[in-house]
Amino acid sequence: MNNLDQLCINTLRFLAVDAVEQAKSGHPGLPLGVAPMAYAIFDRHLRFNPEDPNWFNRDRFILSPGHGSALLYALLHMYGYALPLDEVRNFRQWGSKTPGHPEYGHTPGVEATTGPLGQGFAMGVGMAMAERYLAADFNPVFDASLVDHFTYAIVSDGDLMEGIASEAASLAGTLKLGKLIYLYDDNEISIEGRTDLSFTENVAMRFEAYDWHVLTVEDGNDVDAISAAIDQAKLEDRPSLIVVQTHIGFGSPKQDTAGAHGEPLGAEAMAATRAKLGWPAETFHVPAEAAAHMKEAGARGAKLQGEWQSLLQKAEAKNADAAARLQKQIKGELPKNWDANVPEFSAEKADATRNASGLVLNALARSLGNMIGGSADLAPSNKSNLKDCGEYGTDCICCGPNIHFGVRELAMAAIVNGLALHGGLIPYGATFLVFSDYARPAMRLSALMQCHSIFIYTHDSIGVGEDGPTHQPVEHLWAARLIPGFTVYRPGDANETAECWKLAISRREPCLLALTRQNLVTLDLARYPVKDGVKRGGYILSEAQGEPQLVLLATGSEVELAIKAQEELAKQNIAARVVSMPAVELFDKQDEAYRCSVLPCAVPTLAIEAGSTMGWYKYVGSKGAVIGLDHFGASAPAKTVFANFGFTVENVVEKAKALLS
Amino acid sequence: MNNLDQLCINTLRFLAVDAVEQAKSGHPGLPLGVAPMAYAIFDRHLRFNPEDPNWFNRDRFILSPGHGSALLYALLHMYGYALPLDEVRNFRQWGSKTPGHPEYGHTPGVEATTGPLGQGFAMGVGMAMAERYLAADFNPVFDASLVDHFTYAIVSDGDLMEGIASEAASLAGTLKLGKLIYLYDDNEISIEGRTDLSFTENVAMRFEAYDWHVLTVEDGNDVDAISAAIDQAKLEDRPSLIVVQTHIGFGSPKQDTAGAHGEPLGAEAMAATRAKLGWPAETFHVPAEAAAHMKEAGARGAKLQGEWQSLLQKAEAKNADAAARLQKQIKGELPKNWDANVPEFSAEKADATRNASGLVLNALARSLGNMIGGSADLAPSNKSNLKDCGEYGTDCICCGPNIHFGVRELAMAAIVNGLALHGGLIPYGATFLVFSDYARPAMRLSALMQCHSIFIYTHDSIGVGEDGPTHQPVEHLWAARLIPGFTVYRPGDANETAECWKLAISRREPCLLALTRQNLVTLDLARYPVKDGVKRGGYILSEAQGEPQLVLLATGSEVELAIKAQEELAKQNIAARVVSMPAVELFDKQDEAYRCSVLPCAVPTLAIEAGSTMGWYKYVGSKGAVIGLDHFGASAPAKTVFANFGFTVENVVEKAKALLS
Repeated sequence: MNNLDQLCINTLRFLAVDAVEQAKSGHPGLPLGVAPMAYAIFDRHLRFNPEDPNWFNRDRFILSPGHGSALLYALLHMYGYALPLDEVRNFRQWGSKTPGHPEYGHTPGVEATTGPLGQGFAMGVGMAMAERYLAADFNPVFDASLVDHFTYAIVSDGDLMEGIASEAASLAGTLKLGKLIYLYDDNEISIEGRTDLSFTENVAMRFEAYDWHVLTVEDGNDVDAISAAIDQAKLEDRPSLIVVQTHIGFGSPKQDTAGAHGEPLGAEAMAATRAKLGWPAETFHVPAEAAAHMKEAGARGAKLQGEWQSLLQKAEAKNADAAARLQKQIKGELPKNWDANVPEFSAEKADATRNASGLVLNALARSLGNMIGGSADLAPSNKSNLKDCGEYGTDCICCGPNIHFGVRELAMAAIVNGLALHGGLIPYGATFLVFSDYARPAMRLSALMQCHSIFIYTHDSIGVGEDGPTHQPVEHLWAARLIPGFTVYRPGDANETAECWKLAISRREPCLLALTRQNLVTLDLARYPVKDGVKRGGYILSEAQGEPQLVLLATGSEVELAIKAQEELAKQNIAARVVSMPAVELFDKQDEAYRCSVLPCAVPTLAIEAGSTMGWYKYVGSKGAVIGLDHFGASAPAKTVFANFGFTVENVVEKAKALLS
Repeated sequence: MNNLDQLCINTLRFLAVDAVEQAKSGHPGLPLGVAPMAYAIFDRHLRFNPEDPNWFNRDRFILSPGHGSALLYALLHMYGYALPLDEVRNFRQWGSKTPGHPEYGHTPGVEATTGPLGQGFAMGVGMAMAERYLAADFNPVFDASLVDHFTYAIVSDGDLMEGIASEAASLAGTLKLGKLIYLYDDNEISIEGRTDLSFTENVAMRFEAYDWHVLTVEDGNDVDAISAAIDQAKLEDRPSLIVVQTHIGFGSPKQDTAGAHGEPLGAEAMAATRAKLGWPAETFHVPAEAAAHMKEAGARGAKLQGEWQSLLQKAEAKNADAAARLQKQIKGELPKNWDANVPEFSAEKADATRNASGLVLNALARSLGNMIGGSADLAPSNKSNLKDCGEYGTDCICCGPNIHFGVRELAMAAIVNGLALHGGLIPYGATFLVFSDYARPAMRLSALMQCHSIFIYTHDSIGVGEDGPTHQPVEHLWAARLIPGFTVYRPGDANETAECWKLAISRREPCLLALTRQNLVTLDLARYPVKDGVKRGGYILSEAQGEPQLVLLATGSEVELAIKAQEELAKQNIAARVVSMPAVELFDKQDEAYRCSVLPCAVPTLAIEAGSTMGWYKYVGSKGAVIGLDHFGASAPAKTVFANFGFTVENVVEKAKALLS
C-alpha cells in the first residue's frame, strides 16, 4: 500500500462520515473500518464501467450491511458513477439519490437493496448462480467467455448472525460457487456491544463446514494483504470467505466501540478523527490525486466493456441466433410467441391448480428458454420441476435450471431476487403458502426493488386438509396482498391459472401464485370469459339471469363454490352474479367505471375466500358480508374441514339470502 | 438392547405407521427410522410423569420434525399419557387429539407445536434458557435443585437446513446451555431426494464451530449406543448434538428413499414391512410385555414427582416467601399489586412511546420479578433493557434476565415462545417493527399455541425517518393483526402505552406492542379517559363539541394528529369526535352496542394510520375514508416524510370535510 492508496481510502472514509455528520443521521463506524477492503476490491479487482452501470458482464458488488450506505455512495461518486458530490452531501434527504440504505433502481451502481441483514449475502449467491447458469448456457455455444464475472460482497457480523446467511452459505458450498468472494468485516462489535455477548462461534470453522474456502487477513488496513487474499480466492472452485479483522470507527475516538456504529460522531470526535488520520478540516474534501486515481480505475471499465463488446460481435458471427437470444434475455425481452404453447384446459377434467401450474410452467419454460428455479424441498408437491431439464449442480459446463434449494424458504426467496437482479433469467421459487411467512422479508425486498421474482405457493388454504393448522394458510393471502407493489394471483381453476401465469411473466413484476392442493372444476373457456377477464384482476365470470340482486365475489377454490351457489339461488329465483377476482391488485388498477360495473355499489356483495376476511370489507361495502376464516384451521380431510367451516353451498346460499332480507 | 427393547421399538413403529395407513395421510418414514432414539430417551432418560404432564420439573422433549407426529402419539399413548388407543386410530381426523402435526394445548404431553421446521429446535433453546434462569433464581435460595431438568429434542435434516436453527444453535453455544441435548436424525433423505442435492455441509463440524459438544452414533438402531451418548451429553457443560445415523422408512421396501417420507406406505409395502420386522398382521397391535414395560417407565415418573414435591416442601420450610413466589410463577399468577408502580405520565412532557415502554417495562419487571427478555441487537433503540439487572450469560449460578439475542429475529421470537412454554417466566423479545417480517413464523406459532409471548416492536412507521423504506414498516400493522388470536397494541402516547402493557401482562396471550421512535404529545389523564378506554380496544378519546358530524379514528402516533385536526375543525364549526383504537382485536371483542356507540353507523368515519389502509374499510364503512400509506416510505427526516405523505392537520381537515360534502 502506498500513500496514494492511503489518500484514496481516507477520501472514502471522510466523504462517508462527513455525509453522516451533515445528515445528523447514519452509520460512521462501518465506513471508517471497511474503506480499505472496499478500496481493495474497487481499485484492484472489480470489473465495472461507471458509464454503463448495467454492463452485463460486470462483476457484481453488494454491500450487505446496507447501513454503511455512505461508504457505498462515496465509492460510487469517486469511481465515476452518475452520483455527483451534491448527492453525497444530500445524504438521507427527501428526493436525494442517497437514501439511508442503498436502493436498487434508485441509485446508479447499487446492485441490490440492502439493510435488512443477511439478504445481501443471499442475493449475492443468487447472482453467482445466475452467472454460472448463463455461462454454461452460452459460453460453450460461442466458445468464448461471454458470461464470466465474479460476485463480491462485504458482509458483517449481523449478516452472519442472520439465519438466511447460513441457509445461503450452506447451499453455496454445496453448489461450489467458486466465483463468489465475500469479505467479512470482522470487527467484533454490534449495536449492543461486543459480539461475544451473543456470537462467540468460530465463523471460519463454520464456513469450512459449509465447504467454503476461508482466508484470514489480520490487518484490515492492509490493502495489499486483502488484495492478495482476493487473488487466491479467484483461483478457488469453492466460494471464498475472507475474514478481514477490522476496527469499527477506525481512527475515531469511538474506535472499537458500539458507540461508533449508528450515530454521527459529533463535532468533537470528527475533529479528533481528522487529526488522527491527518485530514483537513474542509468537509467533503476530495484531493485531486485521489480523484484522478479513482477516475482512472473507472475509465479502465470502458475498455473492459469494449473488449466484451468485441467478444459479443464475434459471438454474433459465430451463432447469430444464440447471440440474439442472449441479448434479448439481457434486455428482459420475451421471445416471439412466448405464450403460444400455454395449454388450454378442457372443462371435462377437474384438476388442482398446482397441477395446472406445473403444466403451464413447463410450457412457458420451453418457449422462454430462460426460466430457472425450484422449491424449498417440496418440488413434488409444488409441481415446480422442469421436466427433461437438468439439475442445477456443481458442474460449470453443464448446468440445468432445476434448483434444489433445500428447506430454506427465506434464502430461496432472496436467491430468486438475486437471480432476477442479475438479469438474463426469469427465476421462481416454490413452497407451501403457509411458509411464505418464512420468505416474507425477501418478498418485501422484491417489491421494493420491483425485480421480476415469481413465487409459486401451493396448498393455499384449509384445503391442505390433514396436515392441520400449522400447514393451513389463513392470513397469508391478505398478508401478501398488503405488500406494496407485489401482486397475488389466486386463480380459480386451471384456465385462470394459465392466464395468471402469462401475467406473471409479461408484467415483469414481483408476484406470487397461490395454488390449490385439491382438485377444482375446470371452467369451460367457451362459456366463461376467463381469457379477457383475468387480466382485469376481477371480472364478471357468470352473469345473473336478469338484473343481479347480489354479487358473489370469490377467488381460487371458492369460485367453484360461488358458481354452485349461483345455480342454487337461481332455483330459488334469486339472480346472483359471480365475480372471480384472481388478482385484487390488478382490479384496483382498473378505472372506476369498470370497477363499478363489476361490483355495483347498489348491489350487495358476498365475498367468499377460505382465508381472513379483513381485506374484503373494502369491496363488499357496508351492505355486504364476507364468508372467510378468522381463526386457525383444523386437521382432517379437506372436505370435512371446508364443510365444518362453512364453505358449503348451503351456507353461501343462506348468507346470500340474509343480505337480501 | 434386548428383545424387550426391540419389541417396544417395533410397537412404536407399527402404531405410528398403522395410524398413517388408516388416515391415508401422514409420514411413515420418520417413525420407522427414529423410534429407537425416541425409545432410548423415554425408556432410559426422560424424567416425566404421564399422570401430570405439567409437572414443572419434568424434562422437556420436543419432536422438532412435527410431521413425524404419529411417532409422538405412539409414545404418549404407550407411556401412559391420557391419549387412548382410539385417539391414535383416529389420527388426523376431525375432532381427534391426534392432529397432523403436534399441537401444544391440544394433546397432553405435547410440549410445543411443531411442523414449521426449525422452530422446535429454537423453542427447545428457550426452554433450556428458562431452566437455567429459574435454577439460578431459586435453587441457591433453597440450597436444593428445585429447578433441574434437561431439554431433549429430536431434530431432522430439514430443521438443520432452516436458518432459525443456525441462529438458535449459535446462541445456545455462546450461552453454553449444557442441559440441552439434541438427537439429529441423520438419514440423508429429504422430500426431493438425497440431501446431497442441497445439503453437503459437515453438520458435526458446523456445530463444533458453534461450540457444541458433538457425538456420533453410527447405528441408529443401537439403543445402547444412543443411550450411552446421552449419558455423555448429560455430563457436558456445552449443548450436545448427537448425530444418529438412521434409515428413513427402516424395514420397509421404501427404506432410504424419499418415497418413505410423506405418504402412507400402502398395503403391499406395509405387509412387506411387517414381514421384515416380524410383526403380526393385526393393526394397532400392542404386545402385553411392551405395554407393561413402557407403563412402568411412566410409573417411575410419579415417584420422581413425589420426590420433587418433598423437595418443595423442604423449600417451603426453608423460605416460605420464595417457595410461594415459585409456585405463583409456575401457575402464571401475578403477585398482588403487580401493576401498582406502573408510572403515570404528565402531559407536560412529550415522549416517544418506546421510551414510555422502557419505563413501564422496568416498573413491571421490578414488581413481577419474572420478566426476562431482550432484543435482536437493538436494545438501546428498543428500550428493552432491564436496568440494574444482570446479563443472561454462561454462568449457571448468577444469571440475569437481560438476553442478548444477536441479530436473529426469528430465533428470538421462537426462543421467547420456548421461554413462555416452559412456564415460570414472562418473556419478551424486541426489534424494529419492520423486522417482524423475519419473526413472523414464530409469531404465528405463538398465536396457535396461545403462549404468553410479548413482542416489543419499536420504530413503528415512516416516523423512522432517515433510515428509509427498508426500515419503515407500512404493511406490518395489519399483517400482524391478520394473525388469528394475536393482539397488536399500538398506543397513542405514554399513558396508553402503560395501559397496553398492563393488558399485555394480564391477558396472558401472545401480543406485540408497536411503538414510536419519535416523540408524541402525552395525553392528560385528567382530561382523557385513557384508563377506562384502552381496555375496550377502541374508545372515544375526545368527544365532539355537540352532535358529532364525523369521527376521526386513529392509532398510535396519528392520535395526536387527530386531536389537532379536531381542534382545527372545531374552529371551522365542524364537530368531530376522536376515537383512539390502540387494539383493534379488543375492540372487535366488545358487544355491538358498545362498538356502535363509539363508531355510529350514521356518522362518517375517517381513519388515520401511517400504514396500509386495507383493514380500516371494515371500520369506516362505505361513507368513510382512510388516510394511510399503500406504498413504501422514503428516506428523509421524519417530519418531512410525514408531511409529504399527507399526515398533516391540513390534509386531515381537507379529507374530513370532503366526507361531509
